[in-house]
Amino acid sequence: MYNRTTSLFSIEFPIIQAGMIWCSGWRLASAVSNAGGLGLIGAGSMTPEVLEIHIRKCKAATDKPFGVNVPLIYSRVDEQFDVIIREGVKIVFSSAGNPATWTPVLKQHGITVVHVIANVKSALKCEQSGVDAIVAEGFEAGGHNGKEETTTFTLIPLIRQAVKLPLLAAGGIASGRGMLAAMILGADGVQVGSRFVASVESSAHPGFKQKIVEAGDGGTMLALKKVMPVRLLRNPFFRQVQQLEDEGASPEELKGLLGKGRAKLGMFEGDTDEGELEIGQVAALIGNIKPAGDIVREIMAEYMSARQTI
Amino acid sequence: MYNRTTSLFSIEFPIIQAGMIWCSGWRLASAVSNAGGLGLIGAGSMTPEVLEIHIRKCKAATDKPFGVNVPLIYSRVDEQFDVIIREGVKIVFSSAGNPATWTPVLKQHGITVVHVIANVKSALKCEQSGVDAIVAEGFEAGGHNGKEETTTFTLIPLIRQAVKLPLLAAGGIASGRGMLAAMILGADGVQVGSRFVASVESSAHPGFKQKIVEAGDGGTMLALKKVMPVRLLRNPFFRQVQQLEDEGASPEELKGLLGKGRAKLGMFEGDTDEGELEIGQVAALIGNIKPAGDIVREIMAEYMSARQTI
Repeated sequence: MYNRTTSLFSIEFPIIQAGMIWCSGWRLASAVSNAGGLGLIGAGSMTPEVLEIHIRKCKAATDKPFGVNVPLIYSRVDEQFDVIIREGVKIVFSSAGNPATWTPVLKQHGITVVHVIANVKSALKCEQSGVDAIVAEGFEAGGHNGKEETTTFTLIPLIRQAVKLPLLAAGGIASGRGMLAAMILGADGVQVGSRFVASVESSAHPGFKQKIVEAGDGGTMLALKKVMPVRLLRNPFFRQVQQLEDEGASPEELKGLLGKGRAKLGMFEGDTDEGELEIGQVAALIGNIKPAGDIVREIMAEYMSARQTI
Repeated sequence: MYNRTTSLFSIEFPIIQAGMIWCSGWRLASAVSNAGGLGLIGAGSMTPEVLEIHIRKCKAATDKPFGVNVPLIYSRVDEQFDVIIREGVKIVFSSAGNPATWTPVLKQHGITVVHVIANVKSALKCEQSGVDAIVAEGFEAGGHNGKEETTTFTLIPLIRQAVKLPLLAAGGIASGRGMLAAMILGADGVQVGSRFVASVESSAHPGFKQKIVEAGDGGTMLALKKVMPVRLLRNPFFRQVQQLEDEGASPEELKGLLGKGRAKLGMFEGDTDEGELEIGQVAALIGNIKPAGDIVREIMAEYMSARQTI
């Protein structure tokens, strides 16, 4: 399958595995890349030292292209990029920040740069900053989220008409039919997160993976809108957050409850009551834990079959 | 184009025009039905006496099938149904209530019953209650909305796997590509609201129509979650609601601000500052006001063309 996405990254299928905190290390990224998609190491939960180890192990585990996702709000982001450049990583997905800051630096080193956005204004800024492609992430996506709350169904056509860059749809996509629908709405490929959290190679704690399998509709909710919107599984920690918000808590009070290490506690260490569990609405459609390569192959098979039967 | 939806309603295209308060009287409903879709009179903003007039005028304006949307929370709902049965209306879309209450009565009179839902539990209840089809309405839809906040992209496959009934997708759909995407996700047809509010035949105030044309992304937001979630255009009235909510206002305080007649004031009388303006996220993709028949024909043309080019 050849299109702008497969051509840009030199991959077989236009399926990107989202670079997620605590879930996507070298094992997941290399498994996805080996299956013909694009695997991303999620640097947001790694020190530069740990990131370096993951990049080296990923290079040893696959000859295929892979990338690193870097949230630009991270305090040691300059050291992250030092590691990325030194290790010769060829693809960077940046998120949660201004694409104008790092894109020119990365491009100078021959790196393909993709930036994650959730509104038209940021998409236009990406275009001006010289990024190579955009991920447009809808309201249904897990983890950090746009303030506009625009859903994938509305966001993809909006971004498509605003910019010409290759466009990857994210949020709500875990199947081949989802992929085909996103491409009909204007995407050139998809970024899939939640489905890969519930994979064998994901470094999410087994207890967290189990909660994803069990989630039904209404099982996640957007929280912390006054601090930084984030979609969470509705566990006891979420309910504490919600109660504070309902009482009109200030951003400072919310940050206090959040504290440090809540995401690690839940997603990596498996305290599914007291930890923060970032996952998308599409968890309601995920019913099992599978090898990442099987996920890539099943999405592609369903995509091809759906395309032939419409 | 023949499928379960066109067959159920004896219409040409599986495009339903949502029955909306203050916007969809006999002029809009008959224009959509005459163009081959299914027009609905929105009874939610009509007294039984006014509804009777609209049904009679609609019958005079079209020989094609049309229906009436009835929100079941309405205080004079029994009188509404008296009028509907007496006038020989053949199709009812019910919403905002329990489908078990009225479906058997309506079915006894040979009426085709469709119920609007936003979660799996309600879809299963529809099936048990004997309704003929379901509208599944995503978070991006205008007006009243589900508490689960499930978006069209996630909701349609979820409802598709839960029930076998004909399924109409609503929320975020204003184009042929949107229609095709919804059908790939599992829908048998679409219910389109916002796009028809910005039509020539809609009874929305011209000032409200103009605000829809001007809206960009982030231009609407879900409000009043503690009372009854409703998606509104972000006008000065919305900001008053939002401020109260941010301060942790009680449901009673919010109802006080809402008062009576806010929707009529905004949507019908055109006070776009002090009135409540119910519209979907897809307003960001609507750039003009057109005859409703042209809207039906353009959606179908784009649908057919998109289908052939994927």
